[in-house]
Amino acid sequence: MCRWLAYFGDPIRPEELLYDPERSLIEQSRRGSPEVALANGDGFGLGWYGLRDTPGLYRSSLPAWGDRNLRELSAQLQSPLFLAHVRAASGGVGVQQTNCHPFRYGRWLFVHNGVVEEWPRLRRELTMAVAPELYPCIEGSTDSEVMFYLALTFGLDDDPIGALERTAGFVEATAHRLDVAEPLMMTVGLSDGEHVYGVRYASGPEVNTLFVSSSVEDLRMHYPSNEGLGHLSDKARVVVSEPLINLPGLWHEVPVSAALVVQEGPVGLQPFRPRLP
Amino acid sequence: MCRWLAYFGDPIRPEELLYDPERSLIEQSRRGSPEVALANGDGFGLGWYGLRDTPGLYRSSLPAWGDRNLRELSAQLQSPLFLAHVRAASGGVGVQQTNCHPFRYGRWLFVHNGVVEEWPRLRRELTMAVAPELYPCIEGSTDSEVMFYLALTFGLDDDPIGALERTAGFVEATAHRLDVAEPLMMTVGLSDGEHVYGVRYASGPEVNTLFVSSSVEDLRMHYPSNEGLGHLSDKARVVVSEPLINLPGLWHEVPVSAALVVQEGPVGLQPFRPRLP
Amino acid sequence: MCRWLAYFGDPIRPEELLYDPERSLIEQSRRGSPEVALANGDGFGLGWYGLRDTPGLYRSSLPAWGDRNLRELSAQLQSPLFLAHVRAASGGVGVQQTNCHPFRYGRWLFVHNGVVEEWPRLRRELTMAVAPELYPCIEGSTDSEVMFYLALTFGLDDDPIGALERTAGFVEATAHRLDVAEPLMMTVGLSDGEHVYGVRYASGPEVNTLFVSSSVEDLRMHYPSNEGLGHLSDKARVVVSEPLINLPGLWHEVPVSAALVVQEGPVGLQPFRPRLP
Amino acid sequence: MCRWLAYFGDPIRPEELLYDPERSLIEQSRRGSPEVALANGDGFGLGWYGLRDTPGLYRSSLPAWGDRNLRELSAQLQSPLFLAHVRAASGGVGVQQTNCHPFRYGRWLFVHNGVVEEWPRLRRELTMAVAPELYPCIEGSTDSEVMFYLALTFGLDDDPIGALERTAGFVEATAHRLDVAEPLMMTVGLSDGEHVYGVRYASGPEVNTLFVSSSVEDLRMHYPSNEGLGHLSDKARVVVSEPLINLPGLWHEVPVSAALVVQEGPVGLQPFRPRLP
Repeated sequence: MCRWLAYFGDPIRPEELLYDPERSLIEQSRRGSPEVALANGDGFGLGWYGLRDTPGLYRSSLPAWGDRNLRELSAQLQSPLFLAHVRAASGGVGVQQTNCHPFRYGRWLFVHNGVVEEWPRLRRELTMAVAPELYPCIEGSTDSEVMFYLALTFGLDDDPIGALERTAGFVEATAHRLDVAEPLMMTVGLSDGEHVYGVRYASGPEVNTLFVSSSVEDLRMHYPSNEGLGHLSDKARVVVSEPLINLPGLWHEVPVSAALVVQEGPVGLQPFRPRLP
Repeated sequence: MCRWLAYFGDPIRPEELLYDPERSLIEQSRRGSPEVALANGDGFGLGWYGLRDTPGLYRSSLPAWGDRNLRELSAQLQSPLFLAHVRAASGGVGVQQTNCHPFRYGRWLFVHNGVVEEWPRLRRELTMAVAPELYPCIEGSTDSEVMFYLALTFGLDDDPIGALERTAGFVEATAHRLDVAEPLMMTVGLSDGEHVYGVRYASGPEVNTLFVSSSVEDLRMHYPSNEGLGHLSDKARVVVSEPLINLPGLWHEVPVSAALVVQEGPVGLQPFRPRLP
Repeated sequence: MCRWLAYFGDPIRPEELLYDPERSLIEQSRRGSPEVALANGDGFGLGWYGLRDTPGLYRSSLPAWGDRNLRELSAQLQSPLFLAHVRAASGGVGVQQTNCHPFRYGRWLFVHNGVVEEWPRLRRELTMAVAPELYPCIEGSTDSEVMFYLALTFGLDDDPIGALERTAGFVEATAHRLDVAEPLMMTVGLSDGEHVYGVRYASGPEVNTLFVSSSVEDLRMHYPSNEGLGHLSDKARVVVSEPLINLPGLWHEVPVSAALVVQEGPVGLQPFRPRLP
Repeated sequence: MCRWLAYFGDPIRPEELLYDPERSLIEQSRRGSPEVALANGDGFGLGWYGLRDTPGLYRSSLPAWGDRNLRELSAQLQSPLFLAHVRAASGGVGVQQTNCHPFRYGRWLFVHNGVVEEWPRLRRELTMAVAPELYPCIEGSTDSEVMFYLALTFGLDDDPIGALERTAGFVEATAHRLDVAEPLMMTVGLSDGEHVYGVRYASGPEVNTLFVSSSVEDLRMHYPSNEGLGHLSDKARVVVSEPLINLPGLWHEVPVSAALVVQEGPVGLQPFRPRLP
């Protein structure tokens, strides 16, 4: 099913979210949720900001749970903003490093949990709509990567949420032309190094989950004695496919057909409405 | 938890057991059993007899479910006797090709599901008991591989079941000296190209499962209309950690503390009693 | 630079050509030629006919020289017709299993040594010319794979050499439109399980090498006491990027702008003239 | 043949030495030296200090030249002291992550270029001499890793050069008992995060090369207009198997049977004399 998380705040070591919690991302790679009992063992990736102008990226097609290098990196790096993803391949699309998320372009990092239904049939048309100057950047064979490059084609640099709306709209319109009624399931995580954007949308009634953490201020009110909260800054936020730990009041479910903006200041929430480019 | 199977009979394509059944070995790699919800995604191996004097071997540290080469091989080869294994790493022992089963020495192939408790503490003494001329063959860091070389040290060539009994006995004696009371859980699959040996044993009350298929003759009586049985020869037998398909009467559970011998003619069953070498 | 070989004849074990000769394919992966001192360590593949209706395929992104599974397979299998390839990545195109040759479609296997110059610029147009129903089969990011699917698009099933001529012609025409004057360097190996086709062509003056072995009959005349020749059948032929062994009279250089057809009976040679589809 | 480098100085990005120079470590992985024409494509590793108390480690069995993650890390990290190594497997010892250098224990990092002759014969005795409490740390099958754990056994923490002398002495004594006259070829790189130690020694006349860079002060005198030197601090030193760039006066060859100590202040040089533990 894939699982991802995004962190925004003062610099922390990625291991705090990838490894430490009870239901950490690595634990999610090992055991899928009760509803989907499969592991997410078809590769992973970690992209991080803060060390240079452009984000760094570590991706591997190996299962995340066994990868020592990921453990090392997660323990050594400190980053104020990072995205991580563990993959469960779908639709016969192969397992390879270039099919792992995050995908990166310039300062952008992109992760996706979801699917474009009947991807093999839709792939050509969708890929052809990627701007010719961006086309050579496509290295893998996933729907996710093409969605990212479509978003870049549709103006990600200027209007991220709008570009994602146009991407979803274009995918749906193309799919309808090819008799695929409800093509899209998506939770998307996206960052430019200054914001974390989250989107939760599906063409049909079945939607992947997406959560955002409560403000640290709120959490301290609920859990005044919790030491773990002590070291997190007030602006720390985590956006996740699935809660990393079961703590009442810690997670807010992102509404369906909504987009989230995490930045300095309050978290923004707005409707997400696919439209044609 | 690891899972393995061994086939004995007229030549078939390994895919018939690795991929085709409802609860095929590949399916077992994807989803552990309900009791142990983890995948068996830490590598796999397939060893086959019939093409040359010594068995062929294909091992990889990648999850079995995504490996195209395994699919290819399983579909292309025909073999009258093969062993296959999917691994779940235990005790912190790493994921690498040299830690995957089957292990091979000469005409022998060996697979193991189980564990030597506190392996890091016991490893040195057990490894040092391997015959010096065999020691250089050890390539990995698993308890399973060392158990295999201990069995070779204790006379596997002449008396396979006895050698495995002496291996289990030696492991237990060594463990007891180091205050590990119930060190061993093991189901072992072993072959010399003419027999398939299975062992089911544990030091304590908790034992891994092991099953052997009914004779094809019996199965035809129960399922006279089943076409799948039509192409299997009368001597076909499969030994498995876990049933490949849920068919009443198809599988017999191997008793605890017992050893199985599959060969031309009836299946042999004898007690398995660890003893000192 | 890549290196490949194709064998046609009575069944032999691939190791005889992949490992045994002095300048075997594995040796060629380890040490490039004196002119191009790089290793060919960016993956490899072996495709073989004879066991089933469609060819089997084993590909890996690891260096060929260290791959144990390849050694095993090469020693275990027997095949009357096989193609093998070792890759040196070019033009920044990544190392992954889906970028390794042979590429396979139906009964066809395809290997390539060469390059499409400025592939990132040409990639989109060339890929979009692949027939829509074939497009979903493209898994990697190489020029070689796209050339194969263009050849299938241009009638490989009915007229293999003609389809390759149309492929070369289309690549050249597309390239010229984008100001790439001499885009193509290619030696291609191709098979349908009954023939081995070889092509040697380049747009410009620099051409990759290609050789075909003399008939075994001729070789026996030259080397009456050579035992190695004893076990090869009269129809055995090998097509290679580079001679596997230095034996005067053993190899005939394939002319530039020529296509070779190895089949039962004499080897066919014809001009290779790119034309528009 | 293996190749390694060690950097000591103010923090720099590893890419400056791994990728940027004309004969960078990555270039050395691609093309072996003229004398040994093989690539060093059997894995690599990078270990770095400065981010946490213990060094970080990234190792992979893939060829260094194609590894994107290594490129990323080298560009993103900044470190005042790091060791990097590219491997050419020797003596049949396999290619796996656990056979790649640096090896790490606590604050120590260790790299080795060289060989213990007839390693399969000597392996058991040498490995048995590793302190029992260290034995479980051995994960691979190389002579290099065992040499490291022997050095730790012989007092690396208290007297690094002495421990390496005792290691060499022990290897030689053990080898002589088994009729291996000149067992050892070694250049070793070692660090505790505050010093870089280099050793150049061989039992016989053939010794691997080892160089240390001139002081930056000296280099500025020779090359007053060289901008590259501008950003290096006065204390910067690089120890290398092979010069990264051909610049007269830049590299001093480390004498045979000598040990180097790079630290704050002048570089120390002392004889290296194997002795018995």
